[in-house]
Amino acid sequence: MRDSLPNVTNDVRAFVTDHSAEMLADLDAWLRIPGISSEPERRDDVMRSAEWFAEACRRTGFPTVEIWPTAGQPAVFAEWPSENPDAPTVLVYGHHDVQPVDPIELWHTDPFEPTIDGPLLRARGASDDKGQLLFHLLGVRAHLASTGRANPAVNLKFLIEGEEEAGSPNFEPLLAERRPRLDCDVVVITDTGMLGEDMPSSVTAMRGMLSVDVRLHGPDLDLHSGVFGGAVPNPAKAAARLVAALHDENGRVRIPGFYDDVLELTDRERDLLARVPFDEAEFLATSKSRALEGEAGYSTLERLGARPTAEVNGIGGGYQGEGTKTIVPSDALAKLSFRLVANQHPSVIKPAIEAFIAEHVPPGITHRLRWEGEGVAPCLVPMDTPAYQALSNAICTAFDAELILPTREGGSGPEAAIQKVLGAPMVFLGVGLPDDQIHAPNEKVTLSMLYKGAEAAAHLWKEFAALGRDGLKS
Amino acid sequence: MRDSLPNVTNDVRAFVTDHSAEMLADLDAWLRIPGISSEPERRDDVMRSAEWFAEACRRTGFPTVEIWPTAGQPAVFAEWPSENPDAPTVLVYGHHDVQPVDPIELWHTDPFEPTIDGPLLRARGASDDKGQLLFHLLGVRAHLASTGRANPAVNLKFLIEGEEEAGSPNFEPLLAERRPRLDCDVVVITDTGMLGEDMPSSVTAMRGMLSVDVRLHGPDLDLHSGVFGGAVPNPAKAAARLVAALHDENGRVRIPGFYDDVLELTDRERDLLARVPFDEAEFLATSKSRALEGEAGYSTLERLGARPTAEVNGIGGGYQGEGTKTIVPSDALAKLSFRLVANQHPSVIKPAIEAFIAEHVPPGITHRLRWEGEGVAPCLVPMDTPAYQALSNAICTAFDAELILPTREGGSGPEAAIQKVLGAPMVFLGVGLPDDQIHAPNEKVTLSMLYKGAEAAAHLWKEFAALGRDGLKS
Repeated sequence: MRDSLPNVTNDVRAFVTDHSAEMLADLDAWLRIPGISSEPERRDDVMRSAEWFAEACRRTGFPTVEIWPTAGQPAVFAEWPSENPDAPTVLVYGHHDVQPVDPIELWHTDPFEPTIDGPLLRARGASDDKGQLLFHLLGVRAHLASTGRANPAVNLKFLIEGEEEAGSPNFEPLLAERRPRLDCDVVVITDTGMLGEDMPSSVTAMRGMLSVDVRLHGPDLDLHSGVFGGAVPNPAKAAARLVAALHDENGRVRIPGFYDDVLELTDRERDLLARVPFDEAEFLATSKSRALEGEAGYSTLERLGARPTAEVNGIGGGYQGEGTKTIVPSDALAKLSFRLVANQHPSVIKPAIEAFIAEHVPPGITHRLRWEGEGVAPCLVPMDTPAYQALSNAICTAFDAELILPTREGGSGPEAAIQKVLGAPMVFLGVGLPDDQIHAPNEKVTLSMLYKGAEAAAHLWKEFAALGRDGLKS
Repeated sequence: MRDSLPNVTNDVRAFVTDHSAEMLADLDAWLRIPGISSEPERRDDVMRSAEWFAEACRRTGFPTVEIWPTAGQPAVFAEWPSENPDAPTVLVYGHHDVQPVDPIELWHTDPFEPTIDGPLLRARGASDDKGQLLFHLLGVRAHLASTGRANPAVNLKFLIEGEEEAGSPNFEPLLAERRPRLDCDVVVITDTGMLGEDMPSSVTAMRGMLSVDVRLHGPDLDLHSGVFGGAVPNPAKAAARLVAALHDENGRVRIPGFYDDVLELTDRERDLLARVPFDEAEFLATSKSRALEGEAGYSTLERLGARPTAEVNGIGGGYQGEGTKTIVPSDALAKLSFRLVANQHPSVIKPAIEAFIAEHVPPGITHRLRWEGEGVAPCLVPMDTPAYQALSNAICTAFDAELILPTREGGSGPEAAIQKVLGAPMVFLGVGLPDDQIHAPNEKVTLSMLYKGAEAAAHLWKEFAALGRDGLKS
């Protein structure tokens, strides 16, 4: 088995190589537990999954391992204090639950029967997120072995959620409830990926979001458009004009103040982002779209990762069936969402949107807004922080690379909540690959990425320890 | 009973007064037949209604009376040739079917139990259209009696449709099939109303219509708006922008060429239309709307009767349920209809709309149009024709008035088809009143309006005969 692995060049790599088979055996066992958090009938499986991981943490050496119940599915908390007095505290976030497997007929192998296929391991959860959590357990062992320590050089805390794939409905309350136990100096998110096997990278931003349901009301009943058309306000027309008003001809959002707080990319960031491979044909094929569109002056990756958007997720009003119904409809709606980037604040953008909508509803049409909560803040990892430098060093060592590329995620996750509640700097260490088919049939993970993830984690604890608590702050 | 009727001032009025009770008895009998054409289970009733009216025509003296079957409900055709060699041929159009009665609980009397209430008669069909057809039968008799003729001074043809309230689905084929029998020099439409008891008027225009279903397709599946939002075209946004592009800030339709053929109102027409009473508060109450809106520079009645429109009858795309679904939708639609006025031609406007839509669909969005047939042409009664003058004279005599006001209908009916197929000038003789509650619970007719309608018809045949066939053409 060692022949198929990369050459061993330091103690960490030697340890990981020597113990990779144990990680694979663990992975095989855990992946057989179908812990699908969004399916109520899998509740016991999700609990078994939590218990399995808790036991694995204990075996690894964590002195404190607890299963934390929530109103939904249980999380696992594990803690391993350092004896180093200046040790910073690191909190690793991940999740033990998995996505559903439908459409099951598209799987080539049983999703819960892990299958090795050359350099790959196929199973639901292999990449998202069980494989990545197990590289962490191997990483801790490699860290201890390579440093000759009996306990980590940092205070390690693992918070492993049990319903991330169900939208983390109880995660923020859990953070609030357990806040004192979660104190930390830095957060490591392990639920993302890299650009390629030979292109190590790390997520540096996730977009925030605001979403609102806009209801427009015109006449109190659908009117005959022959008898009244052309003389009374039409809410479907008003909805269309409101949505159309959101963007100018350059694809920029026309809401006054919308861009005021947007942190523009630095030249260095644009340069690094431009090195991220982007294949337009492949992007169009993946998105099954026929053209690119967006804010003028920005690349697609910049539009997705660094620019805020206004999107219409739905619009409706009047007759939508076959044939013709010549009415002036009584009601219409628009479902709008806004992706936010650093340093936009939902609390600032929300009233700006409200004012814009009010201004674009014509006389004779009333409107009502329903906001989806208070919104999600954007999340940014500044590249000039000690934490990011430590991450970069750790990944470069593991991947024999000179540089990691910063990537930006367009979506929003629980990371913003973690950042908000814990108030600590955050970095992303994840080794999924773009073609891992997470959330789709035939999920797989590339085993060498897990080994490198374990190495990177081992190096990272050493890097953080070298910085110390104060060094991480500056 | 005579005491309650207006003073008799000529032979026609005397005859109508003397025979009004017979008309009322006929009306009572006919209104008891629930000939609701849109309800399949009423099929036999619609046939009974046709047979009843056919028999009434025979009793009146029409030598030829036929029931014409269609793919749907039967029409009645009655013909009474004149012995006058220069007699023009007049075709009277009306319908014997009635609207449904739901919501039945809002009726104060049984809809098919005709009830006299002072000057009113309440029943479904009293005004629309049975009462108006029966004033015609009385009018023919008054015409014969007052002129001392054994047959009318014009060749009379009645074409009484049986499914106008179901949208006249088989009427144009019927016209085409029976074309030779329907030859005429002038058409009299008797299915409309007047402004008030003391404000005789006649419809001079009906709007035409084009309607189209626009389907827009973007990505081949709903995309996650976090992952793809801001970088790919969104068909719901495209639908909104298309609809918003239809009107400028002055409420004018922005389709190039849309207004090119529009016949502007003359000063005289604007003056007469301005005399038509319009109560804004009442209009808002009727339309249950909170404001007026429309093309700048025109009154509401002008907007409704003399100006073309673009209306969105429906719009849809993406998620329309409760809460949030952060997608870039795959599909969207807009249901558009366009009211046309003289001299716009559907065949000219249709390609202009098609070009406008094509130009407003952005790259990456495909679109497909489904037109509702070839459209309906607008219908105009020029006020300077001999036929309109004859109608005006007849109505003024019957109503002791000096002037009739021209009104314009915003909707579209079978009239355009009649005008197209028969190619004869058309006038509107109808005596419904605005508060007759046609198509609503508690339909009623004002009996004095029926008597005046009978007088007007009697005078009209004499007026047309005086013009002769050539006189009607000029």
